[in-house]
Amino acid sequence: MTQNKPAEIGMPIQDIDTPALIIDLDSFEHNLNLMSKSVASLGVAHRPHAKTHKSPVIARKQIAVGAVGQCCQKVSEAEILVAGGVDDVLVSNQVVGQQKLERLAGLARHARIGVCVDNLENIGAINAAASKFGSQIDVLVEIDIGAGRCGVVPGAPAVKLAEAIESMSHLKFSGLQAYQGRAQHIRGFSERKVAIEKASEYVLKTINLLGGAGIDCPRVTGGGTGTYQFEAESGVWDEIQAGSYCFMDVDYGLNLTEDGNYFDTFRNSLFVLATVMSIPTKERAVLDAGHKASAIDSGLPKVMDLPDVEFVSASDEHGTLALGRNALKLSLGQKIRLIPGHCDPTVNLHDWYVGVRNNIVESIWPVAARGAAF
Amino acid sequence: MTQNKPAEIGMPIQDIDTPALIIDLDSFEHNLNLMSKSVASLGVAHRPHAKTHKSPVIARKQIAVGAVGQCCQKVSEAEILVAGGVDDVLVSNQVVGQQKLERLAGLARHARIGVCVDNLENIGAINAAASKFGSQIDVLVEIDIGAGRCGVVPGAPAVKLAEAIESMSHLKFSGLQAYQGRAQHIRGFSERKVAIEKASEYVLKTINLLGGAGIDCPRVTGGGTGTYQFEAESGVWDEIQAGSYCFMDVDYGLNLTEDGNYFDTFRNSLFVLATVMSIPTKERAVLDAGHKASAIDSGLPKVMDLPDVEFVSASDEHGTLALGRNALKLSLGQKIRLIPGHCDPTVNLHDWYVGVRNNIVESIWPVAARGAAF
Repeated sequence: MTQNKPAEIGMPIQDIDTPALIIDLDSFEHNLNLMSKSVASLGVAHRPHAKTHKSPVIARKQIAVGAVGQCCQKVSEAEILVAGGVDDVLVSNQVVGQQKLERLAGLARHARIGVCVDNLENIGAINAAASKFGSQIDVLVEIDIGAGRCGVVPGAPAVKLAEAIESMSHLKFSGLQAYQGRAQHIRGFSERKVAIEKASEYVLKTINLLGGAGIDCPRVTGGGTGTYQFEAESGVWDEIQAGSYCFMDVDYGLNLTEDGNYFDTFRNSLFVLATVMSIPTKERAVLDAGHKASAIDSGLPKVMDLPDVEFVSASDEHGTLALGRNALKLSLGQKIRLIPGHCDPTVNLHDWYVGVRNNIVESIWPVAARGAAF
Repeated sequence: MTQNKPAEIGMPIQDIDTPALIIDLDSFEHNLNLMSKSVASLGVAHRPHAKTHKSPVIARKQIAVGAVGQCCQKVSEAEILVAGGVDDVLVSNQVVGQQKLERLAGLARHARIGVCVDNLENIGAINAAASKFGSQIDVLVEIDIGAGRCGVVPGAPAVKLAEAIESMSHLKFSGLQAYQGRAQHIRGFSERKVAIEKASEYVLKTINLLGGAGIDCPRVTGGGTGTYQFEAESGVWDEIQAGSYCFMDVDYGLNLTEDGNYFDTFRNSLFVLATVMSIPTKERAVLDAGHKASAIDSGLPKVMDLPDVEFVSASDEHGTLALGRNALKLSLGQKIRLIPGHCDPTVNLHDWYVGVRNNIVESIWPVAARGAAF
């Protein structure tokens, strides 16, 4: 259910009710512009993943600086993006079940819609839905290039699926979905690079087999914030799906760059604002932000701005801080910024983005696709 | 943002769109009735914690079978409960900041409202808000009886706070909040019991010191699903806050009872319904339910009904199943029930409860306080 807004336009940041999800708009815009230049110089298209931001407002900003469209994972996300003004959406995921496929097929009358497959039976079901609505759907074959999740084995199985797609009345074979999810957070630069080199061999092998079967591969799409430069430089990928770059998080900040530094090319622009609600001892304070405010699947959030203060544990509604010897004294009611451990599922906990510039609330955007899971 | 309902009344369970949060209504009602009898026989009041269910519909059902009111953790939850027909709500937590305190004080004109404190300065702020609205607020002193989160040290510091509350114009000292959160999931029966015996000594010490200062302690409240029998039998607690009993989850199911069995007194009534969306290999299938459908802070969900099939990893929108040698062959589109690892934050991911009886959808209730974090 949608909850009240935690702020109003014009408020100083310290008046925002907490926990709240805030965007540092200067850093956010810096990230959008930097990625725009980066992909342009690398000569690839950029189709940012909306699973990060879940917001047509942000999607349109990405498209305004050059992105070709959006990716998402769910039909419900695609519906919200199209309703919010995005006219080119790739569901970079399998869609199974008649209800979902009919929603996808209906949507394809109103926007360019793509979807991924890794199963022969599913191709027929997608075509049946598209036939019913008289729409055309772009279908990409997902190959498993090392992530060990969905996707067929690269090579012959992918060719078989591409042939099946080509034989369908309302589907168009539109290329390969090739995303190495596991590589995104390999910490070492060279290890991360090697994972994508290996992945690119799988993709090339599949493209060659497709060519041998007389099938052109119009597009290879994939890549995330952790690896997109490798995919782009490989000459194999045409389109990059990096999404987290717009916000960043603790997990991505632990990746290492070529010179051994932490990955800070993109700035942290997303924060959970929390309030100190209890200071039971000199060594411990408690924030009003726990599992319901910041996702911990990829680690705990990190405290900003306060030296020697560490976020050490979370429960549903509480976050516990350990106050070190060199920590400044905290006061009850003090507001503290946290960098989320993992941006995507953290965003999914909130209804509103509070945009802040020069410590003043400038924008309040709905997290329109929060909870859009089906 | 509120998403569409995943089902309609009268549908068979296999037509529910996924991922969906479903309640087995027979098991749910069994749990409500069993707890009602249990607390009655133990001679304590029951004030279930709404942080589990986040629903005035369920709150009223608990009150209908004997509960005296509800607990919650946040002012926004209290507002939703009162608006939904609950007239006695204890915020079993500290509330800090003028905005929140004024909302609490306004609400106290329309329902009996209690709140906890562990800080002297906070007591004055609560009284100022209650004065502004001409309301009276019940204030309980939270003591830390081993959870290591909020709460003052038992004994003299609690007496000091009780005296301060008594001196305020619009506040009433209403007892002690004494919740041993850490004890709830101690697996061994006797270890769990010992933790509450130790906790009860802290409470008794505080009650005695209060008595010495001429202050009556009207109520001791606390206890969760893992320990409520110990608190009730101690003679120290008057009121039990157990909430998870209505749904249960994997984590509570790993507790052991006195005879060494898994704790199954209450039945699993809450499930995430998911769809098999990919079967890339004989050993692996992928569900459409990951971090956005089931919280993993207390462990992964568990697969129901299917022998030798294990939920082995989750990403945002995917759950990966390992298919063992004795697993039956899964089919694409097959729907599978998962027991959530931890019920409370799982409920917080969903907008709707789909109530099912005899495999037919009977009710669709909003998770009205989903996202109510401030």
